[in-house]
Amino acid sequence: MDRILETIRDIKPIDTRLMEETQNRLDSLTKPRGSLGRLEDFAKRVVGITRKVNPKIDKKVIFTMAGDHGVSDEGVSAFPKEVTHQMVYNFLRGGAGINVLARHVGARVVVVDMGVAQDLEPHPGLLIKKVGYGTRNMAKGEAMSKEDAIQSIIRGIEVFEQEMEHEGIDIIALGDMGIANTTPSSAIVAVITDSRVEDVTSRGSGIGDEQLMKKILVIKRALEINRPDPKDPIDVLQKVGGYEIGGLVGCTLAAARNSVPVVIDGFITTAASLIATCLAPLVKDYLFASHNSAEIGHRVALHYMGLKPMFDFGLRLGEGTGAALGISIIEAGCKILTEMASFNEADVSRAN
Amino acid sequence: MDRILETIRDIKPIDTRLMEETQNRLDSLTKPRGSLGRLEDFAKRVVGITRKVNPKIDKKVIFTMAGDHGVSDEGVSAFPKEVTHQMVYNFLRGGAGINVLARHVGARVVVVDMGVAQDLEPHPGLLIKKVGYGTRNMAKGEAMSKEDAIQSIIRGIEVFEQEMEHEGIDIIALGDMGIANTTPSSAIVAVITDSRVEDVTSRGSGIGDEQLMKKILVIKRALEINRPDPKDPIDVLQKVGGYEIGGLVGCTLAAARNSVPVVIDGFITTAASLIATCLAPLVKDYLFASHNSAEIGHRVALHYMGLKPMFDFGLRLGEGTGAALGISIIEAGCKILTEMASFNEADVSRAN
Repeated sequence: MDRILETIRDIKPIDTRLMEETQNRLDSLTKPRGSLGRLEDFAKRVVGITRKVNPKIDKKVIFTMAGDHGVSDEGVSAFPKEVTHQMVYNFLRGGAGINVLARHVGARVVVVDMGVAQDLEPHPGLLIKKVGYGTRNMAKGEAMSKEDAIQSIIRGIEVFEQEMEHEGIDIIALGDMGIANTTPSSAIVAVITDSRVEDVTSRGSGIGDEQLMKKILVIKRALEINRPDPKDPIDVLQKVGGYEIGGLVGCTLAAARNSVPVVIDGFITTAASLIATCLAPLVKDYLFASHNSAEIGHRVALHYMGLKPMFDFGLRLGEGTGAALGISIIEAGCKILTEMASFNEADVSRAN
Repeated sequence: MDRILETIRDIKPIDTRLMEETQNRLDSLTKPRGSLGRLEDFAKRVVGITRKVNPKIDKKVIFTMAGDHGVSDEGVSAFPKEVTHQMVYNFLRGGAGINVLARHVGARVVVVDMGVAQDLEPHPGLLIKKVGYGTRNMAKGEAMSKEDAIQSIIRGIEVFEQEMEHEGIDIIALGDMGIANTTPSSAIVAVITDSRVEDVTSRGSGIGDEQLMKKILVIKRALEINRPDPKDPIDVLQKVGGYEIGGLVGCTLAAARNSVPVVIDGFITTAASLIATCLAPLVKDYLFASHNSAEIGHRVALHYMGLKPMFDFGLRLGEGTGAALGISIIEAGCKILTEMASFNEADVSRAN
């Protein structure tokens, strides 16, 4: 736990004075004032986070964390459980959606086994940080022990710090893989935002009406049996969370501590961000919401954190796919700041 | 006029049978069915447009067309008229917003002088297709002659065909530069969509309340004096349009004729698309709306054409800046189609 507390303690508020200076610089560039809208905001916030007046978004890392979920035994997903490890191998071979979009935006995918139910073959692109072989069925008891919840966060911190030290990181995106993991995510969002389960639960990878009703009942049962404490985010993670979700929490805390912007993907990574911001409210200013997914609870969680997504393409794949596109948009904003000519440099007349 | 009619006549409907086949292929890839939402739609439509089952978005061209407007004499813009040619030089030196974002997405900017009020120095990146030295003041009479309206469209067609022949083109984005050109754009959108001028007119590059009131009155006067015929898009272009708008119309028609997707930028390029779709309704299926701009009439025009923008960042710069980002998103969709592994290839189990 000390490692987590230490990480949280070192997170600084973002630098608002530098952000004001950045707005002045943006206003000196050859465009009507404020005419690049949110692109300007993204650039400004990256400056505030990184404390670099000319931030470069070169080293882009997508952490796609995988874990299995005991609750998949309840039949809450359209896909069988073995898809989690099958997809991990697909990531490592470069054939998944996240690989395609990561290449498109020039990012590196770091795949992390946080708690896949199988032992995975070693691979240079895979970090094994397994806390357990899948969580227990939260509909029948706690998803994991308190110690494992803490461990999952600590290993997430380690993953970030390790990559930061060896390769350097300018920005990260969060991604997830875990059959049934919209179920714990709905549970987390319901508890923390004090929402009805029905209002934050939808079809995940594509279940029908009957299965959706069942999924809602399963989540309600999990909350009744476990009674997670909304004021204690680690208790929520332990009782109705997942190992990959814990890893993403750790990764987010470590990024904030290291002044690195974090791009959130869909519902699962947003549930992780929610836990991270409950643990350390300053984290919120380090987060960029890339998209609004098809999962109905996503909007609720983003709204709770005061985050406005960049786009809404009806994505519901996870893996970090939407966040990959978000990285590229933030990078575009930073390039506006660092590459555009000013009115003086270009000898262009200003507004009357 | 023959050149225009010939171009329109050769525009084919997009290939919906190929699009259905493409959806089947998308459904075989390692992701829940439909889980990449609009990215899948973008890929599918590019296939339908290009008739290539594995479309590559390599050769990306942004046509940024410039022209001056006599109506700027009425004080409808925050910027002085000379900014049009000053910004053209800024484009050619690579210092403008569009240059930065074009580089970011790997696109080439082709700057076209359709009707700048000054003679411009020759430059390898500049095409001189000048129809006139700025339009006449539409608040006092027709913005241009019928012959010049037709000429501007023809020159737009020529610009596209020339680039297509010499360099090849996989996708284009439309961009504009012309001080005061939201004024003719509002006039065009008001006439064609049968909207009140107040509902399609806002602050352009950033005018205040009083100037906005004046702008609205100027547009109303222009419509009263000229009485453009809503059923005759060339009449609308002639009476209340602009040379760069005509050029963009031609460029759009030529792209559709050559089975090339067109990404629209902000309000001005959307007004041009509106004229193009009135001339040739099939064009609509070739268009991708990148963003919803801060100009209130933009939404009206997009809605009229049935186009849904990809994002809303409050952009109001023009030049093709939003469309540049749109290119990258469409490219991402195409890569999903062409680069992702199928369930069979990756040995991943399908949904139950």
